[in-house]
Amino acid sequence: MAVAVQRVTVLGAGSWGTAFAKVLADAGRDVTVWARRAEIAAEIRGEHTNAGYLPGVDLPPRLTATSDPAAALDGAEAVVLAVPSQSLRANLTSWTGLLPPSAILVSLAKGVELGTLKRMSEVISEISGVPDGGVVVVSGPNLAKEIAHGQPAAAVLACADHDRAVAVQQASSTSYFRPYTNTDVVGVELGGACKNVIALSCGMAAGMGFGTNTMATLITRGLAEMARLGTKLGADPLTFAGLAGLGDLVATCSSPLSRNRSFGERLGRGDTLEEAQRAAGGQVAEGVMSCSSIRELASSFGVDMPITDAMHRVCHEGIDPRRVGAELLGREQKHEWS
Amino acid sequence: MAVAVQRVTVLGAGSWGTAFAKVLADAGRDVTVWARRAEIAAEIRGEHTNAGYLPGVDLPPRLTATSDPAAALDGAEAVVLAVPSQSLRANLTSWTGLLPPSAILVSLAKGVELGTLKRMSEVISEISGVPDGGVVVVSGPNLAKEIAHGQPAAAVLACADHDRAVAVQQASSTSYFRPYTNTDVVGVELGGACKNVIALSCGMAAGMGFGTNTMATLITRGLAEMARLGTKLGADPLTFAGLAGLGDLVATCSSPLSRNRSFGERLGRGDTLEEAQRAAGGQVAEGVMSCSSIRELASSFGVDMPITDAMHRVCHEGIDPRRVGAELLGREQKHEWS
Repeated sequence: MAVAVQRVTVLGAGSWGTAFAKVLADAGRDVTVWARRAEIAAEIRGEHTNAGYLPGVDLPPRLTATSDPAAALDGAEAVVLAVPSQSLRANLTSWTGLLPPSAILVSLAKGVELGTLKRMSEVISEISGVPDGGVVVVSGPNLAKEIAHGQPAAAVLACADHDRAVAVQQASSTSYFRPYTNTDVVGVELGGACKNVIALSCGMAAGMGFGTNTMATLITRGLAEMARLGTKLGADPLTFAGLAGLGDLVATCSSPLSRNRSFGERLGRGDTLEEAQRAAGGQVAEGVMSCSSIRELASSFGVDMPITDAMHRVCHEGIDPRRVGAELLGREQKHEWS
Repeated sequence: MAVAVQRVTVLGAGSWGTAFAKVLADAGRDVTVWARRAEIAAEIRGEHTNAGYLPGVDLPPRLTATSDPAAALDGAEAVVLAVPSQSLRANLTSWTGLLPPSAILVSLAKGVELGTLKRMSEVISEISGVPDGGVVVVSGPNLAKEIAHGQPAAAVLACADHDRAVAVQQASSTSYFRPYTNTDVVGVELGGACKNVIALSCGMAAGMGFGTNTMATLITRGLAEMARLGTKLGADPLTFAGLAGLGDLVATCSSPLSRNRSFGERLGRGDTLEEAQRAAGGQVAEGVMSCSSIRELASSFGVDMPITDAMHRVCHEGIDPRRVGAELLGREQKHEWS
């Protein structure tokens, strides 16, 4: 039986954290957002906006915010982790004493940790002590800005413990946000991590002047390579054909709102990694980091991921995007699946 | 052993027929295009352009054209059928006496025939006497205008007779056009027919103001419903995950160049079928017709195709797009694949 969740804390006030907090509040939950910067917490609390991340969006007055993690987590029945994936470990470690022991942990983070090659829910389990598969992972075609504007969207909530997924499903269902449950945590998380890398490649192709045919080909072959890795790691192949695989991939690759795609576009137009990072306000796109950890993971399992490999070589070995493009296209004539 | 094909005739001078003729000519073949209108044949022959369909594209001088089908077909080693799917039967019937008996027949047409519910290669086999599965079907993420501009693209050539597919592969491989062979004719053709209907739905959603999350969801669920139909009809499920399934679907659904998508956008903004048809220069988009034949085919095999069904109801039963949108979103909370 799924428990009813009323009091939810969202740790992280970026665009997706804030948009998901709005969904929860619109679904009637009491939601507190923790923001690292006190001025963002004050803006959410006082003006019901987070204009830096979600311009033009009015947040529900019942949504409150604080920059004090202890106050944010007090009494939480569910805790949503919405911090960048490469800093999730450090953040969560600093919060461990504050997590209510029975709270359901929910992950919005998408990536594979550099060094450990762990998925985000594995990092969360390791630090929090929640058994493997017990974290609820949120994924799907969920561009934060569209959801914050009340555009309809479907999502996937993956957890090995079906009751926890159902509890979060009940806590986050609104007229415009429609979550489906799923038990394939490995597939859902890998889909979410890999799609950032493929979005980077789509942006790069667009930056070099390639059109929709090329983008559609990168999406198709990108899905094939992420499914190859996923099934090797025990994921259900069907997951990659669903909302958290194909759905998320298509949304991220085709939207101008996608940070990974925009970052790739700059690299494709000839910017260096440093220039692209400066243009993105100092941040490196998630796919730039994940391409290396996913490549390493794939290599340790003997899985061929040519697009991910190409992105690593462009981002971290200084290879010209034009050269890897020619290589990807120049493979010999053959049967599609041989 | 694949035979070498040098002399190729393309029947139909629309955008895809002309672009594919250019690919063949760029691959070193002697290509004659048949155009129904004498002035288009004269323009291709004399000015090396087909400005009405491919503005801004220079055609290779070795590409010639005629409006006389007997002259066009004389000596052809391969014949490419590039006429609209619902008029393929009538056209081909009028040409039967002219087809060189040993010529390889190649289909660019995508659709399911109204009334007979046959795939295009089935129609071609029935009329030409070529055994079932012996027609080479071309599909993939192949927006004609991009290919005509030399943008790189991958394609699929499907034929039960692998040697024929290889012959066409050799005749159409260029530095920018990269065809893969495949033996799953049923899957490749159904993918090509169904994607027009899903593109219509994506356009309709965009016309109603929905964003990228909705488009990605329609693509994901649309692929699932076409794969359900295909596997029921004996197709390889893998085909739908490939270039002729997902690849073609993503290209058609996300490009502003897609006729089906543009047509759907008008319907989504409130145009009637007649108004949208007038705006499209008198033509009805292929998906408008295929949604009915595919729905009937699915229904006769007991396959549920909610998006295709919704498109039929909007296009042919006068139902408001807003109503079917609400119905598609309003299904009850459940597991993604139940």
